Amino acid sequence: MVPTRLNELPAYAELRALAARLQSADLQQLFDRDGQRGSDFTLEAAGLQLDYSKHLLDREALAALLKLAQQAGLPGRIGELLGGAPVNNTENRPALHSLLRATRAPQGLEDKFAEVAAARDRMRHWADRLHQGKHTGYSGAVITDVVNIGIGGSDLGPRLVSEALKPFHGDIACHYVANVDPADLQNTLQTLDPGRTLFIVCSKSFRTEETLTNSLAARDWMQQAGAAVADLDRHFLAITTNLEAAAGFGIPAENCLPMWDWVGGRYSVWSAIGLSCAIAVGWECFEEFLAGAEAMDHHFAAGDPGANMPVLMSLLEVWYCNFFGAGNHVVLPYDNSLRRLPDFLQQLTMESNGKRVSADGAALDYDTGPVLWGSAGTMGQHSFHQLLHQGTRLCPADFILPLTTHTGMTGQHCRLVANCLAQSRTMMVGRTTEAAGAALRQRGLDPQEAERLAPHLAMPGNRPNSMITMQALTPATLGALLALYEHRTFCSGQLWGINPFDQWGVELGKEIGVQILGRLSGDDPGGEPMDPSTERLMDAWREAL
Amino acid sequence: MVPTRLNELPAYAELRALAARLQSADLQQLFDRDGQRGSDFTLEAAGLQLDYSKHLLDREALAALLKLAQQAGLPGRIGELLGGAPVNNTENRPALHSLLRATRAPQGLEDKFAEVAAARDRMRHWADRLHQGKHTGYSGAVITDVVNIGIGGSDLGPRLVSEALKPFHGDIACHYVANVDPADLQNTLQTLDPGRTLFIVCSKSFRTEETLTNSLAARDWMQQAGAAVADLDRHFLAITTNLEAAAGFGIPAENCLPMWDWVGGRYSVWSAIGLSCAIAVGWECFEEFLAGAEAMDHHFAAGDPGANMPVLMSLLEVWYCNFFGAGNHVVLPYDNSLRRLPDFLQQLTMESNGKRVSADGAALDYDTGPVLWGSAGTMGQHSFHQLLHQGTRLCPADFILPLTTHTGMTGQHCRLVANCLAQSRTMMVGRTTEAAGAALRQRGLDPQEAERLAPHLAMPGNRPNSMITMQALTPATLGALLALYEHRTFCSGQLWGINPFDQWGVELGKEIGVQILGRLSGDDPGGEPMDPSTERLMDAWREAL
Repeated sequence: MVPTRLNELPAYAELRALAARLQSADLQQLFDRDGQRGSDFTLEAAGLQLDYSKHLLDREALAALLKLAQQAGLPGRIGELLGGAPVNNTENRPALHSLLRATRAPQGLEDKFAEVAAARDRMRHWADRLHQGKHTGYSGAVITDVVNIGIGGSDLGPRLVSEALKPFHGDIACHYVANVDPADLQNTLQTLDPGRTLFIVCSKSFRTEETLTNSLAARDWMQQAGAAVADLDRHFLAITTNLEAAAGFGIPAENCLPMWDWVGGRYSVWSAIGLSCAIAVGWECFEEFLAGAEAMDHHFAAGDPGANMPVLMSLLEVWYCNFFGAGNHVVLPYDNSLRRLPDFLQQLTMESNGKRVSADGAALDYDTGPVLWGSAGTMGQHSFHQLLHQGTRLCPADFILPLTTHTGMTGQHCRLVANCLAQSRTMMVGRTTEAAGAALRQRGLDPQEAERLAPHLAMPGNRPNSMITMQALTPATLGALLALYEHRTFCSGQLWGINPFDQWGVELGKEIGVQILGRLSGDDPGGEPMDPSTERLMDAWREAL
Repeated sequence: MVPTRLNELPAYAELRALAARLQSADLQQLFDRDGQRGSDFTLEAAGLQLDYSKHLLDREALAALLKLAQQAGLPGRIGELLGGAPVNNTENRPALHSLLRATRAPQGLEDKFAEVAAARDRMRHWADRLHQGKHTGYSGAVITDVVNIGIGGSDLGPRLVSEALKPFHGDIACHYVANVDPADLQNTLQTLDPGRTLFIVCSKSFRTEETLTNSLAARDWMQQAGAAVADLDRHFLAITTNLEAAAGFGIPAENCLPMWDWVGGRYSVWSAIGLSCAIAVGWECFEEFLAGAEAMDHHFAAGDPGANMPVLMSLLEVWYCNFFGAGNHVVLPYDNSLRRLPDFLQQLTMESNGKRVSADGAALDYDTGPVLWGSAGTMGQHSFHQLLHQGTRLCPADFILPLTTHTGMTGQHCRLVANCLAQSRTMMVGRTTEAAGAALRQRGLDPQEAERLAPHLAMPGNRPNSMITMQALTPATLGALLALYEHRTFCSGQLWGINPFDQWGVELGKEIGVQILGRLSGDDPGGEPMDPSTERLMDAWREAL
């Protein structure tokens, strides 16, 4: 199957012309001209509402984008993804993260579904045991703290979900250690009692350098506190396919939960990689999280492209990246518990779509995945929003807003909502120099000073943004939100003609890391000479010791 | 004084031609051709070492960039900044953050210096009292926890410094609450004992919405726990210029430490805004932090542009933004305790230089400040480094690496160092398709499969990056590092001809926020009608309640 070449699709030229026209569009005029825009450019799916009316887009451009999706064969590709075709073509594998949240076996995937169901039962066993305070450590004390040791997909997903669902937590506190920097583990262990702590080692291969290093240090800590080797199975679980290596570490097979090579790390929070979350919130809540994602899967599978939320969000991404030259995308969750969402989405989108060759290995002559960044609102308003409003860069934005709060403090939450809606509106409406001048005169500035300052207060507006709302941030809506971005990422990959499921680009850095470690540690002092800068930096490190 | 128009400087055209040539330069060839490059393209200042040899730059381009700096009058501008000239021209003020760390009064600034010195004495008084466990709360118990309530510059700076200097902390734990989302405060207070907690309210105006809302909730919490109104002065300090509003809140003048209008929020961690850090690490440590910054100020003032670290880093920023089309800059601290540095730098750089008009109010026809983003290494390696190595976007990078660790775990730290050097080298060297194919065949792949996969493992290399090292992350080197980025930001602002010290772009969002809050809360239900999207979203919020 030949992957898409975006700029060879018939709709591409049409979209270029439309983009040239819409580049200088006035969004408020688009609203004035199309009375239905405010209600028609919205969509509901799986408990999420998307408002995409504040985009540099009219019905004609939207129709052309949907043509692009058809020409790229997107509906068929979605079927292939969900049906288990080997969409990860460089590794000859399907990408079946959707199966992890399925409640019924899709046709032809009965065997894999049975494996998932069995793994889910084992997750439930551990989640119940720990969540209900039935699991004890070597000293007989009940486990109160779970430390997840993993990095990348084995860290960002569970860390995000655990924090986002804090109002649903039971009595177990979850901690996340990822960095090979020893300070990360050390700071976490400082406050914990070994007899009450359980570690979950998350590494598909059981070979990830950072995770193994931290796990060995955790095991030392446990043994120094008095745990015997025979007690380690009360304090260590592993999520891995490498049972042998886990056994060598001291984690018996019955403490190992499975992973599969058809689930990428950045798509794995639905598997046993999410066990720490299931322990924290309890199994029923975790199943609601899975159900929210499954609802989004069903929407994704069924919706015609024009009513398909992930497809639309992906078309918007391609619209700005390839027709407006945007190099970045900013995500602004107006909910403090989603503050790690940008970190999670960085891996999801940039590791998936930060590629320069097509799925069949040809160098592409157009841009692919943008830089994704962001922070929790209202924090960004006091930091980088200056650039969003007045900078020279196009930064398409996603605002994410739960309409209610779990805290009971509705007055304070109302302020958060007002700020979120205001930022979205401000990006669109901007302010002319004349209006800025008038505002300054109204504040009492003399006309000359008002004229001098007005250009500094003027804002161009027409800066595009989406608003994603939900009744409340619950396990179900969180699951739907993450699945939404997963599928958006897949669609963009298809439109760009790349394979979003491999990550060959990280291999060389690991190889060179091993070479340099050999040189620094003295284990392989005769290794290959490096460039003069790296050689000098290695010398500097030796001198610093 | 007419600000610079970057593209009207004589060196601009020359740099465009040089950039066209260097766009396709091979960095390893540049090293081969210039045997001194590895040592000459380095610089030392205030305990920091900068290696800028892995940039798309040769001696000719460097000379042209330095010409650009001269033509923009940069040395003179630096003198004006440090000498207290009104460089913040739209607000008719100097920007004297350097005075906050000065140990001697610069000529003409004796009065301001005396105020700073007096404030420093008062900071020391409070820092000593709390750090040494001499301050007690309403119940007579010693204060053990300090909660900083502030947002933007009143949060990001102290939060970063406190976390980065964790190995230097005494017995007081510092917490930071910023978000108006009530969950932020609620989660923090959950673990604290009112009788042992002290709040520092950081708001220059004592009117910042988020800070005031959180402070009122904190006061309620304290009073509900049993503190009388008369006890509040044992539990609340304020950093503010608005003594009246603070008194109205219940914070007497003797508990208020000053701010000045000639210090911007994002440049204020050196002032009493940093008090929480001084309490955590003790006054001597905090003075070392100031001294590190002062050492960088002296370097900045004295160094000729070619040996001036902030100037060089700024020229590199402009080089990539305006001659290579880079829209972003990634910062990668290989130290877990610096994981919040990108957040801090987002405000510093994007609020300063995210501007589209010159200091004299003319719309600019070239790009200014880029999007800044990043995360702690090695975390990013398992997340977005795929895009750094193989994406289609130019992402100039700063690696930041303390050469030693405070944890005592030198073996584990050695791995961190190896990873950092390896990522920097990998960005530069890349790997050809042929080399990738050979590596795959060596792994045992058959030639056909190796040929199919090789393009996916190939990496273009020649991706530019800086390496900033230091012997150890100490108060002094941290101070130098933050001052380095402050001055880099200033220089870029001057080269772009903008005023980096105002932030008019955030005003309109606040105004519209107030209007929407009036509509939502019912306090001003008859307010101005908004666009159809905002109206519909307000309805959705009302229905969700």
